[in-house]
Amino acid sequence: MTNCSKYTRQYFMPPVKCMKWAEKEYIDKAPVWCSVDLRDGNQALVIPMSLEQKINFFKLLVKIGFKEIEVGFPAASETEYQFLRALIEQDLIPDDVTIQVLTQAREHIIKKTFEALKGAKKAVVHVYNSTSVAQREQVFKKSKEEILKIAVDGAALLKELAEETEGNFLFEYSPESFTGTEPEYALEVCNAVLDIWQPTPDKKAIINLPVTVQHSMPHVYASQIEYLSENMKYRENVILSIHPHNDRGCGVADAEMGVLAGADRVEGTLFGNGERTGNVDIVTLALNMYSQGVDPELDFSNMVEICEQYEEYTGMHIDERRPYSGALVFAAFSGSHQDAIAKGMKWLEEKDPKHWTVPYLPIDPKDLGRNYDADVIRINSQSGKGGVGYILETKFGLNLPAKMREAMGYAAKAVSDHTHKELMPEEIFELFKKTFENVVEPLNIREVHFQQTEEGITTTVTSTFAGGQKSVTEAAGNGRLNAVSNALKKAYGLKYDLVTYQEHALEQSSSSKAIAYVGIRKPDGSLAWGAGVDPDIIRASIDALVTAINNR
Amino acid sequence: MTNCSKYTRQYFMPPVKCMKWAEKEYIDKAPVWCSVDLRDGNQALVIPMSLEQKINFFKLLVKIGFKEIEVGFPAASETEYQFLRALIEQDLIPDDVTIQVLTQAREHIIKKTFEALKGAKKAVVHVYNSTSVAQREQVFKKSKEEILKIAVDGAALLKELAEETEGNFLFEYSPESFTGTEPEYALEVCNAVLDIWQPTPDKKAIINLPVTVQHSMPHVYASQIEYLSENMKYRENVILSIHPHNDRGCGVADAEMGVLAGADRVEGTLFGNGERTGNVDIVTLALNMYSQGVDPELDFSNMVEICEQYEEYTGMHIDERRPYSGALVFAAFSGSHQDAIAKGMKWLEEKDPKHWTVPYLPIDPKDLGRNYDADVIRINSQSGKGGVGYILETKFGLNLPAKMREAMGYAAKAVSDHTHKELMPEEIFELFKKTFENVVEPLNIREVHFQQTEEGITTTVTSTFAGGQKSVTEAAGNGRLNAVSNALKKAYGLKYDLVTYQEHALEQSSSSKAIAYVGIRKPDGSLAWGAGVDPDIIRASIDALVTAINNR
Repeated sequence: MTNCSKYTRQYFMPPVKCMKWAEKEYIDKAPVWCSVDLRDGNQALVIPMSLEQKINFFKLLVKIGFKEIEVGFPAASETEYQFLRALIEQDLIPDDVTIQVLTQAREHIIKKTFEALKGAKKAVVHVYNSTSVAQREQVFKKSKEEILKIAVDGAALLKELAEETEGNFLFEYSPESFTGTEPEYALEVCNAVLDIWQPTPDKKAIINLPVTVQHSMPHVYASQIEYLSENMKYRENVILSIHPHNDRGCGVADAEMGVLAGADRVEGTLFGNGERTGNVDIVTLALNMYSQGVDPELDFSNMVEICEQYEEYTGMHIDERRPYSGALVFAAFSGSHQDAIAKGMKWLEEKDPKHWTVPYLPIDPKDLGRNYDADVIRINSQSGKGGVGYILETKFGLNLPAKMREAMGYAAKAVSDHTHKELMPEEIFELFKKTFENVVEPLNIREVHFQQTEEGITTTVTSTFAGGQKSVTEAAGNGRLNAVSNALKKAYGLKYDLVTYQEHALEQSSSSKAIAYVGIRKPDGSLAWGAGVDPDIIRASIDALVTAINNR
Repeated sequence: MTNCSKYTRQYFMPPVKCMKWAEKEYIDKAPVWCSVDLRDGNQALVIPMSLEQKINFFKLLVKIGFKEIEVGFPAASETEYQFLRALIEQDLIPDDVTIQVLTQAREHIIKKTFEALKGAKKAVVHVYNSTSVAQREQVFKKSKEEILKIAVDGAALLKELAEETEGNFLFEYSPESFTGTEPEYALEVCNAVLDIWQPTPDKKAIINLPVTVQHSMPHVYASQIEYLSENMKYRENVILSIHPHNDRGCGVADAEMGVLAGADRVEGTLFGNGERTGNVDIVTLALNMYSQGVDPELDFSNMVEICEQYEEYTGMHIDERRPYSGALVFAAFSGSHQDAIAKGMKWLEEKDPKHWTVPYLPIDPKDLGRNYDADVIRINSQSGKGGVGYILETKFGLNLPAKMREAMGYAAKAVSDHTHKELMPEEIFELFKKTFENVVEPLNIREVHFQQTEEGITTTVTSTFAGGQKSVTEAAGNGRLNAVSNALKKAYGLKYDLVTYQEHALEQSSSSKAIAYVGIRKPDGSLAWGAGVDPDIIRASIDALVTAINNR
């Protein structure tokens, strides 16, 4: 690749070591969530949402349980202005939900923002200006003092207009491009803004420290957050907020470590929509907590519908591998994984139904409204006995002997390998029936008669082989199946041992049929298998034996 | 959501505090990369790759620069066996590339693996068994001692067969499901395996500590890695490897912190393909290093082609927001972002062309073979003057006055808002021409004559308005454009001030045309704009004025 020396690290470490957060292991309480789907998310769509789509999306967010929702930058676009007006005028904002609007720290934009808010009962007014070295030098061409003044002037105007305007207004300030800003300077700017706002316990202020662009590893961001959290004025009256993006693929880690480091609030989006690589994915954050036993205070139990609505409104596609929501994230194609999941599910049921510890499934798919059959155990050429056996058992009520599962696994693998496609449960069931159930070629039994005397069981078997002449053979045995087996061996000179026999009722069938499974060992030591289905258990077992012989 | 109390944290902290890694800020040297695309990645595809696709994928990996490539689990599937044989028999493995094969720690599988390797000059044989609490209890139903014995017996058999088989074999051991295993026990198992292998400086062993399922935050994983790294026997002769998955969306953070904590080697895949939520994305890891000035020793300069090939072979789609590779990750639709990028690009060119610090672009898209026009500045209803101005300037050679860019920004925004779609550069250019270039309705100038005397310039202008009667007006001015303006004001009683005039040659045009831009201030204080294009600079400026008047 071209010379990497054109790049340098663009972040700044705090002036003192700030690693206390790392003593904590996990998040034990949900932060305040703020959805920025309708602003930051919308702003990154190839085709931004229409008014109607935005209203539907807003309702979806409310249903999930968001209590703070950034609804736009009303001074920047006509659609965003109209959307805000529709929310207010159509009374679409529940009493326990606070809307939030974004504005640059520029006088005419702040004024237009307050005009757009007329009639809102409650709102967070979120003002920002850029503070990073790169933006100060390249974009604004201003000194640190001048940039600080933009923030302070904006904060003062917010306060002034909020006093003049009816409604309950909370303030939020973001030093935009925080991750490219010296932490001491960001602190100075935030403290200057707070000096204007003078937050109190009754009227807290939000300070939001965004990962506008990810420049560092997550533990560096966490130490920056800890530094600001520990040195911020009015800290007890400040709601410290974070807003990670995902340029280095570490948005989730930034958010989680930021919370350990002192953040009280997280701004993000569903499925990580947002500028470039996206905002942090709140679905992942919430379900990471949930899967460790902590209530996320958001409801994703209807994930399938949430995904569908999201894709409809945004025109974006949820990646197959996105944690918790992607189509493939619970799929196990590999034989050993399927086997472990099947055993884990059995263990759960039998030993500890109250605790979820199933291998390879960090969360119960059912909690998200997904189901095991369609989403978890899926069969292709990588799969084996575990998955195929699981599907035949749970979906079709067939409880194959362990070694027969293996044979069925190979049969499925061969078909999938050859056809180069995934096998659906119905196809597996059909394959089972075709391969193992009541196969009557070449050996076919026409008539069986039994005599039960004091000496034991004897049988007279009439059979054909490969469509040839009928053969009538008599034989004895310690049981009916054994007697038939002996008769067949005698009739055709067959060599095998009958090693496995199992039978069970077919519960899922409306009739009262039984299924029998028979395994025979061939002279080379390998096994052959057959199953028989019949209302009569003897017929079922004989059919199973005949099939096993035909499968030699 | 349903009761979260069914979940508990399934990981274990090391017995002592292991946080030395957090003193390091960043990764300063590329780890050894091992691609597991053809094994772990392939195993997670709905339709696993064919032999031909695997061979092509292998060649792609070699071209990118991977020196270690896991090629399959040859004892588990016929296709994987054939692929390995093809690589060996068709001599497709370069001398500086080592292939790696996976095997469970089971005798017949290990034996079949060595058979499959016949003729290979060099290979890593990677043996694993599951060590987590959940797998010991639920799947294997074995004690710690019994599980340890599986590992040790497997290790011993590897050593024995390697001595019997021709070729240079390295060993790798993975305590599978490491993240659900007690660190002390994982250490005990690894040390027991190492006691069998007795690694030396000439024949190191690989110990791989996978995040089979992500159960904890990344700093917990890092502390587990540090604990094992610091307490492992033969440490100087061990290559400590990590293999993160992504269940909690933290695969990248796990890998990066794992490297800080002592890992020498990372197993992962391109674009994070792999079981469920995927393996760690090596593209992101490598380019995270690159964007901090560290050579990743992998080449992604031809990203577009790599993406295309990957999608073809795997049938997977690269998410639009996947770091560095996604279609939208460099896209800036928002006006303020476009403005900052345009200024940053200018700053780069003029002030510091050797260092990349452009806002909102953590990496230069050109380094990945992507281009600014198509990938970065994109125009929809969220965009403004910056982006539109940038496109007109860089793609069509039009350098609009700053305030005119704003007007053009609003025009584009209105069209995009109304048509509900993104505007391509050609559409923006067409919109500019339609809106601002040589508009001759309602005012149209038919003839202009100038007289230049010692007293100044006078002009005679013949014009029509809205297709009406010709009007012939004489006027004077301090320049030609000023004189024409005065004549038009006089003819139609127009009220405006001519406030901006700029003109430049149209470099990209084959003829030697010039373009003039004229801005007029209307009585209400707002501006109207026009442009004129003509080989004659006077005509161009008059056309611009007329257009501005027509745009009032």
